[in-house]
Amino acid sequence: MRIAVVHGPNLDLLGHREPSIYGRTSLADINGQLGELATALGVELEVLQSNAEGDLIDYIHEAAARVDGFLVNAAGLTHTSVALLDALLAVDRPYVEVHLSNPAGRERFRRRSLLAPRARGVVQGFGAESYLLGLRGLVRVVCEGAHEQRGA
Amino acid sequence: MRIAVVHGPNLDLLGHREPSIYGRTSLADINGQLGELATALGVELEVLQSNAEGDLIDYIHEAAARVDGFLVNAAGLTHTSVALLDALLAVDRPYVEVHLSNPAGRERFRRRSLLAPRARGVVQGFGAESYLLGLRGLVRVVCEGAHEQRGA
Amino acid sequence: MRIAVVHGPNLDLLGHREPSIYGRTSLADINGQLGELATALGVELEVLQSNAEGDLIDYIHEAAARVDGFLVNAAGLTHTSVALLDALLAVDRPYVEVHLSNPAGRERFRRRSLLAPRARGVVQGFGAESYLLGLRGLVRVVCEGAHEQRGA
Amino acid sequence: MRIAVVHGPNLDLLGHREPSIYGRTSLADINGQLGELATALGVELEVLQSNAEGDLIDYIHEAAARVDGFLVNAAGLTHTSVALLDALLAVDRPYVEVHLSNPAGRERFRRRSLLAPRARGVVQGFGAESYLLGLRGLVRVVCEGAHEQRGA
Amino acid sequence: MRIAVVHGPNLDLLGHREPSIYGRTSLADINGQLGELATALGVELEVLQSNAEGDLIDYIHEAAARVDGFLVNAAGLTHTSVALLDALLAVDRPYVEVHLSNPAGRERFRRRSLLAPRARGVVQGFGAESYLLGLRGLVRVVCEGAHEQRGA
Amino acid sequence: MRIAVVHGPNLDLLGHREPSIYGRTSLADINGQLGELATALGVELEVLQSNAEGDLIDYIHEAAARVDGFLVNAAGLTHTSVALLDALLAVDRPYVEVHLSNPAGRERFRRRSLLAPRARGVVQGFGAESYLLGLRGLVRVVCEGAHEQRGA
Amino acid sequence: MRIAVVHGPNLDLLGHREPSIYGRTSLADINGQLGELATALGVELEVLQSNAEGDLIDYIHEAAARVDGFLVNAAGLTHTSVALLDALLAVDRPYVEVHLSNPAGRERFRRRSLLAPRARGVVQGFGAESYLLGLRGLVRVVCEGAHEQRGA
Amino acid sequence: MRIAVVHGPNLDLLGHREPSIYGRTSLADINGQLGELATALGVELEVLQSNAEGDLIDYIHEAAARVDGFLVNAAGLTHTSVALLDALLAVDRPYVEVHLSNPAGRERFRRRSLLAPRARGVVQGFGAESYLLGLRGLVRVVCEGAHEQRGA
Amino acid sequence: MRIAVVHGPNLDLLGHREPSIYGRTSLADINGQLGELATALGVELEVLQSNAEGDLIDYIHEAAARVDGFLVNAAGLTHTSVALLDALLAVDRPYVEVHLSNPAGRERFRRRSLLAPRARGVVQGFGAESYLLGLRGLVRVVCEGAHEQRGA
Amino acid sequence: MRIAVVHGPNLDLLGHREPSIYGRTSLADINGQLGELATALGVELEVLQSNAEGDLIDYIHEAAARVDGFLVNAAGLTHTSVALLDALLAVDRPYVEVHLSNPAGRERFRRRSLLAPRARGVVQGFGAESYLLGLRGLVRVVCEGAHEQRGA
Amino acid sequence: MRIAVVHGPNLDLLGHREPSIYGRTSLADINGQLGELATALGVELEVLQSNAEGDLIDYIHEAAARVDGFLVNAAGLTHTSVALLDALLAVDRPYVEVHLSNPAGRERFRRRSLLAPRARGVVQGFGAESYLLGLRGLVRVVCEGAHEQRGA
Amino acid sequence: MRIAVVHGPNLDLLGHREPSIYGRTSLADINGQLGELATALGVELEVLQSNAEGDLIDYIHEAAARVDGFLVNAAGLTHTSVALLDALLAVDRPYVEVHLSNPAGRERFRRRSLLAPRARGVVQGFGAESYLLGLRGLVRVVCEGAHEQRGA
Repeated sequence: MRIAVVHGPNLDLLGHREPSIYGRTSLADINGQLGELATALGVELEVLQSNAEGDLIDYIHEAAARVDGFLVNAAGLTHTSVALLDALLAVDRPYVEVHLSNPAGRERFRRRSLLAPRARGVVQGFGAESYLLGLRGLVRVVCEGAHEQRGA
Repeated sequence: MRIAVVHGPNLDLLGHREPSIYGRTSLADINGQLGELATALGVELEVLQSNAEGDLIDYIHEAAARVDGFLVNAAGLTHTSVALLDALLAVDRPYVEVHLSNPAGRERFRRRSLLAPRARGVVQGFGAESYLLGLRGLVRVVCEGAHEQRGA
Repeated sequence: MRIAVVHGPNLDLLGHREPSIYGRTSLADINGQLGELATALGVELEVLQSNAEGDLIDYIHEAAARVDGFLVNAAGLTHTSVALLDALLAVDRPYVEVHLSNPAGRERFRRRSLLAPRARGVVQGFGAESYLLGLRGLVRVVCEGAHEQRGA
Repeated sequence: MRIAVVHGPNLDLLGHREPSIYGRTSLADINGQLGELATALGVELEVLQSNAEGDLIDYIHEAAARVDGFLVNAAGLTHTSVALLDALLAVDRPYVEVHLSNPAGRERFRRRSLLAPRARGVVQGFGAESYLLGLRGLVRVVCEGAHEQRGA
Repeated sequence: MRIAVVHGPNLDLLGHREPSIYGRTSLADINGQLGELATALGVELEVLQSNAEGDLIDYIHEAAARVDGFLVNAAGLTHTSVALLDALLAVDRPYVEVHLSNPAGRERFRRRSLLAPRARGVVQGFGAESYLLGLRGLVRVVCEGAHEQRGA
Repeated sequence: MRIAVVHGPNLDLLGHREPSIYGRTSLADINGQLGELATALGVELEVLQSNAEGDLIDYIHEAAARVDGFLVNAAGLTHTSVALLDALLAVDRPYVEVHLSNPAGRERFRRRSLLAPRARGVVQGFGAESYLLGLRGLVRVVCEGAHEQRGA
Repeated sequence: MRIAVVHGPNLDLLGHREPSIYGRTSLADINGQLGELATALGVELEVLQSNAEGDLIDYIHEAAARVDGFLVNAAGLTHTSVALLDALLAVDRPYVEVHLSNPAGRERFRRRSLLAPRARGVVQGFGAESYLLGLRGLVRVVCEGAHEQRGA
Repeated sequence: MRIAVVHGPNLDLLGHREPSIYGRTSLADINGQLGELATALGVELEVLQSNAEGDLIDYIHEAAARVDGFLVNAAGLTHTSVALLDALLAVDRPYVEVHLSNPAGRERFRRRSLLAPRARGVVQGFGAESYLLGLRGLVRVVCEGAHEQRGA
Repeated sequence: MRIAVVHGPNLDLLGHREPSIYGRTSLADINGQLGELATALGVELEVLQSNAEGDLIDYIHEAAARVDGFLVNAAGLTHTSVALLDALLAVDRPYVEVHLSNPAGRERFRRRSLLAPRARGVVQGFGAESYLLGLRGLVRVVCEGAHEQRGA
Repeated sequence: MRIAVVHGPNLDLLGHREPSIYGRTSLADINGQLGELATALGVELEVLQSNAEGDLIDYIHEAAARVDGFLVNAAGLTHTSVALLDALLAVDRPYVEVHLSNPAGRERFRRRSLLAPRARGVVQGFGAESYLLGLRGLVRVVCEGAHEQRGA
Repeated sequence: MRIAVVHGPNLDLLGHREPSIYGRTSLADINGQLGELATALGVELEVLQSNAEGDLIDYIHEAAARVDGFLVNAAGLTHTSVALLDALLAVDRPYVEVHLSNPAGRERFRRRSLLAPRARGVVQGFGAESYLLGLRGLVRVVCEGAHEQRGA
Repeated sequence: MRIAVVHGPNLDLLGHREPSIYGRTSLADINGQLGELATALGVELEVLQSNAEGDLIDYIHEAAARVDGFLVNAAGLTHTSVALLDALLAVDRPYVEVHLSNPAGRERFRRRSLLAPRARGVVQGFGAESYLLGLRGLVRVVCEGAHEQRGA
């Protein structure tokens, strides 16, 4: 199994700036933790961070042929990019949406995620841990090839 | 560390009915898996399921004195119960919201969660796995005593 | 065939108070008339009234195993209870929604019924007669095992 | 007692087309069943179907002098015709609104009925049976000369 | 004259928890102050607190026969319970709505009170004093048997 | 302690016109009752009524230096005057909002108060008694110098 | 100068039914009064009433060649008929909108007039007098060939 | 019979500025034409123009004792002044709302009139002629002492 | 293959009036051009224009038996007629919606088309050319019997 | 005459993936068909596809000097990119908007096109044929240099 | 060149109260700085502050004859006064809107400025400096007699 | 002090195209004027224009280390880019928003700026002068290190 991790705009700044807000965990740290967990779970990972919507879409198109699912933190594009949603739908791979913070508790314009309705799962609010939980969930989803389970 | 798991209305039916929709995992199965994970993580669990909002609130009041956090699937009350939110806020324990399905992809009235803005984290869409991921996240939150981390 | 009649909050007061508003027909009268019609139609009835959402949900769960459909007047919960809707959906029995009054002509917050979109049929505005018409309709629905018929 | 049945646009197609959707009951069948029930209930019936709002209004004006109430399925005009509502209000006869399907479960623009707030009763979702239940209810309303009964 | 005081969900926690937020006045203290004021005003009091909507409705039904008015702090149910409103309307006793805090200055979902439009009066924002002012106002309303006074 | 009572537009007409609507209590009567209560409570009062927003603002600016709080019935300006709100905020004195009627039960445009979110307390619906209750509440607020108490 | 008077649906019932609501002035009376005023003002009149939107549009098309303006009471179509608006715009004659009642004080769905934004003038609420005032205004508009005058 | 004409803010500028927009008719011209029509109709007039909401309210209070109705062009206050509406309602005299232009065809914020729902009649869009038509309508209303006539 | 062209209200005026706005192309010209293109494409045409919604619906019902698709310019009814939509859905033939102008750039109430969501295709803004393009598209759709193709 | 064809995000995937959804027509096929039609119509074509908004804007700026119009399928950017709209407006060339699918029948967020109100024409829902029809329409628009034609 | 500076309600309090919030710059200081800048720019200034909407309108009417533009901080009236907007439009002088704070970052009701859409320019958020920047901008606008420049 | 000027999409076209709309001032001219003013104010400038959101974000990240503030005209991205807002917030430098035109007077979708609520100041509507005023304001903000000043 191979998973692509997609980090959206501004996530490259994690850990290097404003540690009181963003914490001291850098994106490299998160990628490192993800790598360790992936090894433990027996899956391969690849990672992209970009501030450009177009690069993210290009990457999703290209990576789709070799991965089984996407772990996506689209950051600010979460709320505005129909094109990114269309890319994820077009390649027909399950994806899981993660957020460091909990957008439900932030500004009104962050409450609507264009990606969430079609995601297999969503994890938000746990800081860097969101990625790890999201990877666990995605691996489970891919393993089971399960369809979205209805219920509460 | 001790965690209370709170299951809201209709979750008692899980696994016994409509397995094509809800899967064959019963609430007992979920509680069993949670128990195993709790043991592995070295935390104690207690569990309540009720179809009555008042009972859920009574339980939260009463359990708060002995637990460090709540893992909550409020089911249909997620979208309508200010009183349940107030109960969770009043007892001042971190809580994590979980859902078996992904409400973002369901009816419009399921998209607003009254609990989410004040939750430490949210996990949804992974079926029974949502509970396990939520428990992992909650344990991390309680361990760190960390405040909600800002970011994307 | 066996039908469960579910009366929601405040319907216990019917006929005993404010007869100028609610008429002199008590809930016992309605239940009596329903019983006579059920006998005439050759179906068994059972009846519950409760002011507690949780009790109504418990009852729906438990009765589902022995009944073929639900005749529901959820009263004030009609407009607010996602949990009650979920209970009716979970047990997978056809249900018919009835109201003594015509909510379309009352306050704005009574115009949205959470139950109506998934109901097999709705009867409202005929006073106690709404129950009798609803029972006739529900019996027909159960007999035919018919799926919701499209059209105007 | 004499009742006018008013069928709105497109109901002339019932039963002749798309039986998988609309069923095999034609408008003539419905009118026949209504006639039988009317005989059983001891009331006279008259019936009009038209695809033209103006014709429906003309008919309501003209029929009002000889009937005691209207049984109305305004079909698509239900959601758009203030003029039809005004016709029913102007002639000051009780009317009952019926629908074959349950508009609450269909497109958003079908959820608002301009006629419902002033109707004596509404029956929807039971297929052809909606008309029969509606006729029973209307006959009861006319018999009692009762004012709209308040309550849940 | 006899007045029933109705305390809604979570008010049992007052004074025992989070004194920096809720103050050190317990519900028992408030009930005590209300009792003293009632004695001074020459009225009898009875009091119920419950976290269950159904229990509150049951109580309102049952107490109505022996009291002249209700002093209600419905807490979180203020914003969501049509059934509680219906209970208060059904028993046809004047009621006054009180809140410790001022919901107008809190979250958006706390701004709409379903109870307020039919209340005789509303008092909010004065902490425990809200209850005392509300009791004074309710006693005046009951004494005068006055209808709602129009004006600014 | 000294309190300024601010009466907004049209309140000068109280008692002189439409007694069936506004009651026979004149503004002078209300001011008299307020004066008596103030004496009983040991506080000084001053009073202004004006139909002009600008005069009300000028008065608030000027009175602020000598009073400890404002008791405000802004009448029709309640719903429209940001400038009046700004005046009350600028002078940094606690204020209590009162209304003779209960705006929650009146026209839609009366339901939003611009003043309420920042008021220390609100009293509405008790007729002239609203002023007396509001004065009691304001005196308590000033005495305690208490900050807005959170809770239900 | 020649003016066409256009009466929309249900206005044929004026004066013959519900005199307590609609008054005893029949449409013939209104037409008679309009005729007298037209004679006094030296203008010719022609009149159409129809309950059918299509007939009204046909008439506007056909009459446009011989008249200088339209006096229109579109009744219920006022709020719903884009086609009627398009007919009036297409024939490029000034039109004045009149209503017997004042729609601003009636149901919400009567508050939006599709015709009003492009009308030269609007007169509403004066009963039959609305037509007479509207005719005076329209004659003035046609005489002056004036463009819509800006201002308050 | 005596009528008060109330001109709101900025109407003092009529005719003196921007004749291409506002025409060359000054407020004095309008008042002159109103005076002539009043004489012809046998009624007395008095007139006030003010740019201050408070002055307009004071005037309405004071004039009410000697006049039988108000002819009101509230200009920009039409859309924003609840206090002006309250003044007109408080003095319990019929009033007619007039506008030179047709607000329905202007900016969105000019489409809602707070005064219109309670006005006896509305005339808009005829320039200065709106006042003359409005005066005719108001005189008729006062003569008949008629209640608002329902209908289309 | 046989196609029915349906022209809605006011399109009979094309070319005869306001050529600066509507161009000099008459409806006969458009029908002529459509006829030529139909011949070139080897399909038969039939055409109806009516200003009456009812006639349009009658025609759609009756023509459906002999045609393979509808080319529809519903003009003003586009935005308001649920009944016309229902007619097109009931006869189960593919239809293409065309407009001379581009409604997206016109008044707000023209932006919602009730017909568009269920149309096979939409062409708007090219003047008379819209019909020709629409016919080409419809012929292609009928030939392929293709289901709606998903994508951007 | 020279036309630029602009394909937005994800259209590069056409035909290569999910043929059951997107069909087997690749973007190269579409470009080929457009080339053939262009030759037949005697116009030159140039084509760009990009997943990056910035590249699309750069291209529009640069191509504008050598082309007479743009044929644009902005895909997901249709609904979100003010910058793309501004680019098309800034270069002052007519553009036609095309879509393979019919966005009116898809998710709510796809119903608003930022580009449509200023487009000369829109074609949607015909699959690859939409491009061919759009090219025909655009060539006609450029030939005629015609301004947007008003009408239905 | 001569410029009128218009200060709206509550700005008289600047610098005298709450220096921690409003700073220590008084209105006199701002006027002094404006005077110095005016001298440097070679323009004359006049200044008015009032808490009364009517006085501000009177002043704008009267000053218009002698000034070339208005520099306006309407404070709370910015969001509510159509009459003030109408005054500025009526006198046909360019005006620039300034705010000390940045309303975009404050309460929701402060986000809509009625004055901004017709202003030549807007400057907000720079404290007292907003006035100086606004004066510079206004002088430039008056010098150039330039029409509003389109663009981003 | 060093300031970065950020020009968003399409601003590269300024002055080269549509001078009647955009004026003859090119972006180079604006940059030149900014350079002169910067020199006069003793600050260093650097400038970037890009049509790509991603490039703008990359630049903000990278420039932040060497500049004290950002002067931003985000053009069409102003209304749509949460990612750009997040970039400006992440680097924690004060920024000032400028616009050539006044978006408040343009299309509805241009009225909401995502950047404005967190900007130190906003200048709009003065054409190229907006940049110069914005630079002056930003320099003042950076000099003072002042926090946003509250007030009107």
